[in-house]
Amino acid sequence: MPDYTTSIEVKRYNRSGLSVSQDVIIKERPITLFVNGRELAVVVCSPVYLKELAVGFLFSEGFFQGKEDLRTVIVDEKEGVIRVEAEDWIPSDENLRKRYVTTCSGRGKTTLYLVDDVLKIKPTDSSLVLSIEEILYLSGEIEKNTIVFRSTGGTHGVSLCTSKEVICTFEDIGRHNAVDKMVGHCLLNGISMDDKVIVFSGRISSEIIIKIARIKSPMIISRGAPTDMALGIAKQLGITVIGFARPDKFNIYSNDQRITIGKSN
Amino acid sequence: MPDYTTSIEVKRYNRSGLSVSQDVIIKERPITLFVNGRELAVVVCSPVYLKELAVGFLFSEGFFQGKEDLRTVIVDEKEGVIRVEAEDWIPSDENLRKRYVTTCSGRGKTTLYLVDDVLKIKPTDSSLVLSIEEILYLSGEIEKNTIVFRSTGGTHGVSLCTSKEVICTFEDIGRHNAVDKMVGHCLLNGISMDDKVIVFSGRISSEIIIKIARIKSPMIISRGAPTDMALGIAKQLGITVIGFARPDKFNIYSNDQRITIGKSN
Repeated sequence: MPDYTTSIEVKRYNRSGLSVSQDVIIKERPITLFVNGRELAVVVCSPVYLKELAVGFLFSEGFFQGKEDLRTVIVDEKEGVIRVEAEDWIPSDENLRKRYVTTCSGRGKTTLYLVDDVLKIKPTDSSLVLSIEEILYLSGEIEKNTIVFRSTGGTHGVSLCTSKEVICTFEDIGRHNAVDKMVGHCLLNGISMDDKVIVFSGRISSEIIIKIARIKSPMIISRGAPTDMALGIAKQLGITVIGFARPDKFNIYSNDQRITIGKSN
Repeated sequence: MPDYTTSIEVKRYNRSGLSVSQDVIIKERPITLFVNGRELAVVVCSPVYLKELAVGFLFSEGFFQGKEDLRTVIVDEKEGVIRVEAEDWIPSDENLRKRYVTTCSGRGKTTLYLVDDVLKIKPTDSSLVLSIEEILYLSGEIEKNTIVFRSTGGTHGVSLCTSKEVICTFEDIGRHNAVDKMVGHCLLNGISMDDKVIVFSGRISSEIIIKIARIKSPMIISRGAPTDMALGIAKQLGITVIGFARPDKFNIYSNDQRITIGKSN
């Protein structure tokens, strides 16, 4: 497994008393992303799958339209730097400003953000459907597959799935980074996302829904709760939102035409 | 209670089958913060306690040194705008840049961030001590007091506490915003923070620890996990970090000289 964690000494208190033991905690590192020589962003993240992070970030934030915009990615883990060479593009001041206000959990743009980001995205026309049983199955899989979370409690996880199985899972200290790494992995490996469902461990805010909309995935299933703004965007763009998903229950918040009572096959 | 939530129709599935009911979900709104007429930040947040949010943000991000830097705050909730008049200060390009890269969950600055932000902060010299029983008690109180979380599952919460009791609790869709609102409330009401403990529902990343360091609180107790970078800063600045806190157990990660076996009185 990649190097997500480090070991430290911790004092534990429980009703049996105090004890000292080694514990595993999650690593956090600042990584600076340069595009064609200009600093675009600094991402505080789990320092693994950095190539995927860079590529996914550039796409899911709307800077890149696809893999064709990418020339090379060089990751210098020791220095905490990722250098991307892109086709004919240097981040402008506007890009920098845009980036700094769009990507964070709980920090984003204003009306501009809805007008600019959402109105440019076409509603999904995916014909994907999932049965109730398939949704319950995938809700259980995210718990099994987020192994860094189980050892540290410090990450969020996201899986890309067909209706039947998990294709890949990524974890990161940041919800957004986990999604970006999954997106980058899919772009780099030619895995389609517009016919797949996203299974997520975190809360569904507007910024997460906009990322999901950019990759044209038609459905997100999350352990967490959606916000009203996220649901407004999901309804506008035809995305099915399922929240509070567990192996035995879930809530459907939008676009339930993709959920069938019986199994598809 | 302020207007954190909205009501929507939701379809619920559980082993008894599908049902339709009204559900309460959390509101999310983008709020633009202007300081002396210049746009400093856009914060996507729970649209309540916006005056507290603005003041706390400006202080805990290091723009303001104290309440004396503040002249007036005007909140226009309908327009989603907060206008702050500050003493002799207009955000510079550097401030804007700094702000955009420091405040987000999972997005921050690089080495500069540690050098600039941490080295300017003096280690805490607080003499606060808490007993094991007091820590367990406060860990239970955060669960009781985060009432928006209990109805929506969509917020993080933070309480300012003495060793004996909770002084105030704030919730927000963003972990950072909840802390900022608490800080703003304390600054506006002259409540000291450097002799109190912070009880938090979320994961402890470096950016949360830097906010705690700026308000000079000597101890944070969280339900969540700390990262290695957060612990590095906490050790450097003398902050006691307690994680995975529940009403019957907790882990001590740093500066355990503030934890006593017996009750203080």
